[in-house]
Amino acid sequence: MTSSRTAIILTSGGLDSTTCLAIAKAEGFSTQYSLAFDYGQRHRYELTAAERVARHFGVVEHRVMRIDLRQFGHSALTDDIAVPKDRDEHAMNANVPITYVPARNTIFLSYALAWAEVLDADDVYIGVNALDYSGYPDCRPDYIAAFQQMARLGTTRTSFTVHAPLIHLTKAQIIRRGVDLGVDYSMTHSCYDPVERDGTVFACGRCDSCLLRRKGFVEAGIADPTRYIDR
Amino acid sequence: MTSSRTAIILTSGGLDSTTCLAIAKAEGFSTQYSLAFDYGQRHRYELTAAERVARHFGVVEHRVMRIDLRQFGHSALTDDIAVPKDRDEHAMNANVPITYVPARNTIFLSYALAWAEVLDADDVYIGVNALDYSGYPDCRPDYIAAFQQMARLGTTRTSFTVHAPLIHLTKAQIIRRGVDLGVDYSMTHSCYDPVERDGTVFACGRCDSCLLRRKGFVEAGIADPTRYIDR
Repeated sequence: MTSSRTAIILTSGGLDSTTCLAIAKAEGFSTQYSLAFDYGQRHRYELTAAERVARHFGVVEHRVMRIDLRQFGHSALTDDIAVPKDRDEHAMNANVPITYVPARNTIFLSYALAWAEVLDADDVYIGVNALDYSGYPDCRPDYIAAFQQMARLGTTRTSFTVHAPLIHLTKAQIIRRGVDLGVDYSMTHSCYDPVERDGTVFACGRCDSCLLRRKGFVEAGIADPTRYIDR
Repeated sequence: MTSSRTAIILTSGGLDSTTCLAIAKAEGFSTQYSLAFDYGQRHRYELTAAERVARHFGVVEHRVMRIDLRQFGHSALTDDIAVPKDRDEHAMNANVPITYVPARNTIFLSYALAWAEVLDADDVYIGVNALDYSGYPDCRPDYIAAFQQMARLGTTRTSFTVHAPLIHLTKAQIIRRGVDLGVDYSMTHSCYDPVERDGTVFACGRCDSCLLRRKGFVEAGIADPTRYIDR
């Protein structure tokens, strides 16, 4: 791992994708491009966090693609449906969750693939997680492998590789790995339903994403730097 | 084929996708949704043609998704690069053509997949063609099969099916099939570099798309209703 290798990292400003940036760098991809999506999400603060994280990592370019998934609706992340709160893990994992955005990771990875072709890059990092990700079908290892295969057949990038280094890790393991790599999680944002008060953004502490994050820090035995509204 | 079945048809206003609409209807998909893309293409007249075709077929909804592939550039279809003219078939097929838009079909199919999830539909038609399509990697049968597999794994649509009924047909066979089904090709538009003169849009007659279309009509033994600038 000597010369500079190029990777595109899908970023949301959250804990997982920020850890991916650190892992990609540790794995020798020192030339980094980050890609975030403005898809009509209610929690638009994540775009601010994504840009802050990208700047911190010194990426060559941080791009925000505007895509209009709201036209397709059907999700508490883009519609005016209440984000579920205080669910236990059984409830989170029982069904495809209401916060599921149709084909989201497929669309995100497709844009990353297009950018990879233009940049002559073969490597994309995505922070999906099969264990702690509330049952989204597009976070499973066989899905990631299938996307990679499709991408190799459908483009000029026959060595295209989707890196999903968090896929088999628990949230606690992800946090420990990130802390080992020097990640400052206070700059990341995970909450689906943040609250702004006196110019400061607080996490709700009760949506699925907050609950998984809090539990992760507890299990990792690491102090949680997140500002929750209920603290 | 009795009750109404639902399909989404990717449309460009061109000869191939219009034939797909007719085939989908003939195959029992009488509830049709059509999806076109405004991706910064220079030949924007195709969007007008797509809408006209959709209206003609009486689709339930015709949707134009605006996606910003120009940000990624790298194609004569979206950049200010000259569209190649008067190429023979050897030149067309020698390399990935300059008119290739990075990951275009992958992005298009990903949006169709998202819409399919929202509509509770399993069937998407795409007019790709492996024989006459100038060597685009995302028009090959194994690519289509790989996309379908990826889609089934990554969504709630485990029976999702990508129909590519033209994939093994020559342009002449496509035209004959369409004419058998009553398609009026005068409403379709294929040219990459159309010319407007006195309010009428003419095809250039010399880009790859025009050359394949003209040859198709000649080989099918059917009069070509296209208005070319050089006639």
